[in-house]
Amino acid sequence: MTYAEDCIFCKFAKHKIDTAIIFENKDVVAFLDNSPAGNLVGHTLVLPKKHYETIDKIPDKELGEVIKVIKILLPAITKISGADGINVIQNNGKAAGQAIPHAHFHIIPRKHGDGIYFDEKRRKSVPMELVETAKAIKEELTKQ
Amino acid sequence: MTYAEDCIFCKFAKHKIDTAIIFENKDVVAFLDNSPAGNLVGHTLVLPKKHYETIDKIPDKELGEVIKVIKILLPAITKISGADGINVIQNNGKAAGQAIPHAHFHIIPRKHGDGIYFDEKRRKSVPMELVETAKAIKEELTKQ
Repeated sequence: MTYAEDCIFCKFAKHKIDTAIIFENKDVVAFLDNSPAGNLVGHTLVLPKKHYETIDKIPDKELGEVIKVIKILLPAITKISGADGINVIQNNGKAAGQAIPHAHFHIIPRKHGDGIYFDEKRRKSVPMELVETAKAIKEELTKQ
Repeated sequence: MTYAEDCIFCKFAKHKIDTAIIFENKDVVAFLDNSPAGNLVGHTLVLPKKHYETIDKIPDKELGEVIKVIKILLPAITKISGADGINVIQNNGKAAGQAIPHAHFHIIPRKHGDGIYFDEKRRKSVPMELVETAKAIKEELTKQ
């Protein structure tokens, strides 16, 4: 299966629903999480465009492309968010906190002592946060 | 730098200090975490043998090899731990919870409702836990 009719991430990847995309290529899409962990901007999801439920189902080549994109995004997200550190987190199965069954990596900007616990209830992004943050990260990417 | 004199993970990778290694090849080593998150056995660390501090410093090829090993290990760790789900977590910088400055991925087996928060104080492995778990996972890997 490359597209799942009832999958919101498939719809984002195919541009059937608008979202704050900061990077995409043939195999991979990256967009801002609408419910960021912590107070920093820039919490990003990176995923294969094709629908695979968990990491072990993603073919090596596509998974390699996803990881390359994570490496490309890390400096720009760090700069725009003002993060002191970054978590890269990939959850498999509801028991592990996977909310959408389309495999994805979280890039989460962190500050010293921010006390984020990943399973906690997350805030909703504030108005224009995603639009403005996506714009800033995309501009930063053009400088690299 | 490929080896850091004061890095415990470099010492594990070079077999200068014994640890519960469950898999290794030319570029990658995987061993059990001595302070597992939660009560399940099988919390594993997977890393490049060479010393890189954060994910963005790992060359694409070696990082691809690390990810392939994670994919190889996932089914065996899931089976031996009895997990309902798996977190793959990679922390960059102290602010993000990185304790050892040699880039590594955590594979953390989860049960529904286990209430694990990753930044919490972790338990110490119980006697023989690592030895016996490593043995079980290695046996499981030979069956694949």
